[in-house]
Amino acid sequence: MASVYGNILKLSIFGQSHSPAIGCSLDGIPAGIDVDFERLQEFLNRRAPGRDETSTTRRESDAPEFIAGITNGFTNGAPIAAIIRNGNTRSQDYDELRRKPRPGHADWPAQVKYGGFQDVAGGGHFSGRLTAPLCIAGGIALQALEARGVRIAAHIASLGPSRIEDTPLDPMKPNEVQLAAILANPLPCVSAAAATNMRACIMEAKNDLDSVGGVIECVAYGVPAGLGDPMFDGIENRIARIVFGIPAVKGVEFGVGFGAAELHGSENNDAYRVEDGRVCPQSNSAGGILGGITTGLPVVWRMALKPTPSIGRHQPSVDLDRMENADLVVRGRHDPCIVPRAVPVAEAACALALFDALLEADGTSTFTHQTPRAE
Amino acid sequence: MASVYGNILKLSIFGQSHSPAIGCSLDGIPAGIDVDFERLQEFLNRRAPGRDETSTTRRESDAPEFIAGITNGFTNGAPIAAIIRNGNTRSQDYDELRRKPRPGHADWPAQVKYGGFQDVAGGGHFSGRLTAPLCIAGGIALQALEARGVRIAAHIASLGPSRIEDTPLDPMKPNEVQLAAILANPLPCVSAAAATNMRACIMEAKNDLDSVGGVIECVAYGVPAGLGDPMFDGIENRIARIVFGIPAVKGVEFGVGFGAAELHGSENNDAYRVEDGRVCPQSNSAGGILGGITTGLPVVWRMALKPTPSIGRHQPSVDLDRMENADLVVRGRHDPCIVPRAVPVAEAACALALFDALLEADGTSTFTHQTPRAE
Amino acid sequence: MASVYGNILKLSIFGQSHSPAIGCSLDGIPAGIDVDFERLQEFLNRRAPGRDETSTTRRESDAPEFIAGITNGFTNGAPIAAIIRNGNTRSQDYDELRRKPRPGHADWPAQVKYGGFQDVAGGGHFSGRLTAPLCIAGGIALQALEARGVRIAAHIASLGPSRIEDTPLDPMKPNEVQLAAILANPLPCVSAAAATNMRACIMEAKNDLDSVGGVIECVAYGVPAGLGDPMFDGIENRIARIVFGIPAVKGVEFGVGFGAAELHGSENNDAYRVEDGRVCPQSNSAGGILGGITTGLPVVWRMALKPTPSIGRHQPSVDLDRMENADLVVRGRHDPCIVPRAVPVAEAACALALFDALLEADGTSTFTHQTPRAE
Amino acid sequence: MASVYGNILKLSIFGQSHSPAIGCSLDGIPAGIDVDFERLQEFLNRRAPGRDETSTTRRESDAPEFIAGITNGFTNGAPIAAIIRNGNTRSQDYDELRRKPRPGHADWPAQVKYGGFQDVAGGGHFSGRLTAPLCIAGGIALQALEARGVRIAAHIASLGPSRIEDTPLDPMKPNEVQLAAILANPLPCVSAAAATNMRACIMEAKNDLDSVGGVIECVAYGVPAGLGDPMFDGIENRIARIVFGIPAVKGVEFGVGFGAAELHGSENNDAYRVEDGRVCPQSNSAGGILGGITTGLPVVWRMALKPTPSIGRHQPSVDLDRMENADLVVRGRHDPCIVPRAVPVAEAACALALFDALLEADGTSTFTHQTPRAE
Repeated sequence: MASVYGNILKLSIFGQSHSPAIGCSLDGIPAGIDVDFERLQEFLNRRAPGRDETSTTRRESDAPEFIAGITNGFTNGAPIAAIIRNGNTRSQDYDELRRKPRPGHADWPAQVKYGGFQDVAGGGHFSGRLTAPLCIAGGIALQALEARGVRIAAHIASLGPSRIEDTPLDPMKPNEVQLAAILANPLPCVSAAAATNMRACIMEAKNDLDSVGGVIECVAYGVPAGLGDPMFDGIENRIARIVFGIPAVKGVEFGVGFGAAELHGSENNDAYRVEDGRVCPQSNSAGGILGGITTGLPVVWRMALKPTPSIGRHQPSVDLDRMENADLVVRGRHDPCIVPRAVPVAEAACALALFDALLEADGTSTFTHQTPRAE
Repeated sequence: MASVYGNILKLSIFGQSHSPAIGCSLDGIPAGIDVDFERLQEFLNRRAPGRDETSTTRRESDAPEFIAGITNGFTNGAPIAAIIRNGNTRSQDYDELRRKPRPGHADWPAQVKYGGFQDVAGGGHFSGRLTAPLCIAGGIALQALEARGVRIAAHIASLGPSRIEDTPLDPMKPNEVQLAAILANPLPCVSAAAATNMRACIMEAKNDLDSVGGVIECVAYGVPAGLGDPMFDGIENRIARIVFGIPAVKGVEFGVGFGAAELHGSENNDAYRVEDGRVCPQSNSAGGILGGITTGLPVVWRMALKPTPSIGRHQPSVDLDRMENADLVVRGRHDPCIVPRAVPVAEAACALALFDALLEADGTSTFTHQTPRAE
Repeated sequence: MASVYGNILKLSIFGQSHSPAIGCSLDGIPAGIDVDFERLQEFLNRRAPGRDETSTTRRESDAPEFIAGITNGFTNGAPIAAIIRNGNTRSQDYDELRRKPRPGHADWPAQVKYGGFQDVAGGGHFSGRLTAPLCIAGGIALQALEARGVRIAAHIASLGPSRIEDTPLDPMKPNEVQLAAILANPLPCVSAAAATNMRACIMEAKNDLDSVGGVIECVAYGVPAGLGDPMFDGIENRIARIVFGIPAVKGVEFGVGFGAAELHGSENNDAYRVEDGRVCPQSNSAGGILGGITTGLPVVWRMALKPTPSIGRHQPSVDLDRMENADLVVRGRHDPCIVPRAVPVAEAACALALFDALLEADGTSTFTHQTPRAE
Repeated sequence: MASVYGNILKLSIFGQSHSPAIGCSLDGIPAGIDVDFERLQEFLNRRAPGRDETSTTRRESDAPEFIAGITNGFTNGAPIAAIIRNGNTRSQDYDELRRKPRPGHADWPAQVKYGGFQDVAGGGHFSGRLTAPLCIAGGIALQALEARGVRIAAHIASLGPSRIEDTPLDPMKPNEVQLAAILANPLPCVSAAAATNMRACIMEAKNDLDSVGGVIECVAYGVPAGLGDPMFDGIENRIARIVFGIPAVKGVEFGVGFGAAELHGSENNDAYRVEDGRVCPQSNSAGGILGGITTGLPVVWRMALKPTPSIGRHQPSVDLDRMENADLVVRGRHDPCIVPRAVPVAEAACALALFDALLEADGTSTFTHQTPRAE
């Protein structure tokens, strides 16, 4: 059940980098959600490659064809299904890879698991291209959440070996200036200076036939208190389960995250106060989650992405046919840094996790019939 | 489906800190696993409280009663069920908490979610005590994995505000000296000096009526290549989903983890070489996982635990009945640092995740009938 | 995931006929359900053995001990867990069965599946005794549904080789006289005459060292329209999945069921009319379900139970040790007919299926916070 | 999670009768299965409409386009995805249905559940057309099972108000004459005479603007003993859960099924004898399943299909806009009897259920690496 996610929602992602098409089905989505296709396409464009010299030169329009689940612009209660045709593939680039597994890629474990039957072209089902259908489903979840007052934003928190840092997003309430800047800057950063420096870092790696990684921070504002469950279906578990489905992610943390290990309890505990007759945490070390359940403050999390494994340098590998050492030069068109394009993917993943939890708490019928959340 | 984990295995954990008992059922466990109860109890004792002045003074024997699933010392194919009676509870300690949510605890989100029906005594179902049944199930999974050549060990990687660091576990192959030291030192550390320093750090926090957190590293040796699945059921996803079920965990990372964000691809990629006719990665930045699937090298991961939220100091909270600000002093017996006792919990969680993936790949009948893994 | 049921609810059943205890955990149950323990015990007593000479003479009190999930008489949002101690076991009765599989029992396929590690005493995990924890969970679901206006009743529709038939339950609306009669008659029948005749049939089989089967009809009144899902999570699928978990069930049908195969469409289609400003089907061939979704009429279904396989006669079997033919006489205490005791089990199974579907549609938070269903 | 099926396999079905396309994804399918596309198309043709005057005149080629999961004719381990374009739709036929729910169809409960957002054209997601993707996935499962020695065949067991009966399939071993006859006769029957009589019955109903139902029997030969699980994941539960996903199914039974309720235990129990050094049941009342687990004899089950609800006669319905009674004449092209076309659907459903159970028992890696079943 590798490529299926969710409790109420059942997102199934299919496709390989060079198969006729990629796509997804999204079962369990309530009827009556108003889908704005134009905004969805704008969202998908933020992930699409080929728009900037920091990303791969493979150009793909990423225009989904919806084949089911939407009638007259509204979800109709049946599973949503959408596909994106693959074009502009150059499979000949990958012939050598049948024999020589690329360091840092899934080639070798896939060879063991699938016994040689796996599709190696372009990374097959392991390709970062599979985040496009994740963004289709996530983009719709984002719109559904927005109708409930939830807004999700991500940005590059830090990038590269010199750890260029962006200004963190406000963990207490949405800051419109920050949110606008992320969409306006040349890279999705709050700070224009950070964006400029990160861009230079990526270009330098590209020129060196190398690659860099980074950390993405994502915040969900307006999430009601009381969502999520104890133990294995907490909001952290749900987000982590989907986020590790994004290629290259090697770490996930919530609130102050790994930093919490270096605080005293007296520093890390978020105090409560009454404000306007409501219980309000006064800080957000917890990242909006305690015991797996939302506190009413923004949900704050970060994910670490490793540097793209496909680099143009000579790398030590093996020849599986001859069972001998063999060097490899990865050809094809690759991103020197996947982090900028992964920013909307983080938003999509977060939206799917939270929307699933919201449906589980409030019910699908409640959603369709537009009854507001009783809290 | 909060407290249920697994694809083939279905671990259900039940109980509250002060309910008559806590326990678990473990469905899907193959028949024919030889359960060594003595070793299991030794494993549980590593988690049990009250054995050292760095932990809570609440003493619990944590001796499970097995009520189903084991016949003549072997699993019989039916779900395993075990309970641990709760004793030595002092519920009067918790009366004030009905009104005043403890900062850093699940009290407040639970109040919103459960509308006041939740069991507040001792943290209820959110209590760290619920890791005892996790260790029962995980302890059996550890024994089943050992029979297949898999060994799992964890230790405190770093602790406290001054970030006292232990020697990392060897990420390439098991080091017997390291593994023995963890069990011999006063705290589960590879380095005796680190153990001593960490112990002092915890005692200092205790004397200050405060608490500290830390990072635990866990390594699974002997995991065959080819386990796990792409996207949402990769080994990372599986481990993360169970690990965020451990109270106080705020971050999870694999291999070099967040550090990968600061490496170049040329540094982070693990080269392949042929050794003894087999494909061998030459380093383990990946933590033994690529594309969600094991590479044949040890699976390496870390989790960050926040400082225990229960501290003896005055903390700002609210009175929910009067809806006004109110200070709180958490009474009762609490751990100034939960990290040492969480070390076997990390091993248990890792074992359950890997055993579940192994059963999915190799089948339950294959396991019962003792056919070795065809790889 | 053999003994786990449900989408939102996760019912885990554990135990063997002669293990120290049997029990269940019920995860996903909302907080705030008022549990009437006295009524629950009355419900369990309807299933318990030893109260009538038509059933086994093994006497068991079936008094559950609740070890988690309920505080002050209300569900607290944590998983409910309950156990029933096994007593009065006579395992020596079953020694011969290790070698000689009983015809009609799971002994032989269990031997193949579990490789000899299975618990054979009393049928192990395959025992009808495992319906006791199903009734604990189902009894609570029944109470939760009643608070929403849903009432579930079952009776013996027909019994034995001469097909003694009871009066069917009204498929359009609850008939109080019928519902009271089921509880008052010596067997759970609408008609006193049918109950008398069925009783005689069972006693005749008992005296002949033989057994008889029967059909149970179950009706859920007051189920709101719009529950359930298309395809694989329709109300039929959900009920069938749990009902085939009851030992001895060999068939399930809804509405006119297999009889629908002998009707013309013009006879089988339930006409609609407007009554009191509402859409009302005028008949209920559909058993209250179309396309997997409830129509607003009662949900009507039947299950066929085979005659108890344990009979006192000589039966042809094999000796597995010697691999030769061998006759078998099943000793121990057995029901000559399991049908009467299975009537509350049908109600319990139906309640769990419908409650799970209701929670999925309306949400767990909606339930806890007592918001009525928006329809 | 309405339209998703399976434990290891995750079949997701999407599409509506008149959406741009219908299709499925099949996650969890092992790599290395040799897919014979020609045989698959022949299998799909058995379900496709418009080939005989007993079925609807809507002609659809049902030629799937595989967009993922297959490389060079073998499954590659990634999810299989396939779509079938919808053509030849006449949506204007369905305009009246927005206001007037068709008796016997899902129109009315769908209106309640989806609040008017559902796609009513052609029955939307509730259409029998959605069995086409079920047959794509099931056809591949059939081929995978055949490679393991499992053969599945179905036929019309009885049809219509006068209950025209076909010769039952041999429940002990495959009979090649029977299996060939089913494919050769004008309707899928063992007996040519039965086929002729059934055909006449359907044509009579058609001429009367009415419809008829029937019962389909399906047998799986060669299923190894020991497959399936106790309680809720027995083979009966698994088959029932998928079979009730086929539109119009109102009952499912195994072995002698409802007939078991009329047998004595001494008649219903299948005796064991040793044959050729193996344990062999001597009859098959159990339908090859005891305690949810296969016995080694063929798995035998039947499903009852109601008469097609779409009939050309005037039917009493309501006008939802005016909330008043209103007659309805269903226009469009419809099958006077869906039973013949549902025969391959039964085989597909059975294959998916058994293949999923086989993968769970033996493991996906075992399958890919072609290790035969250790039994």
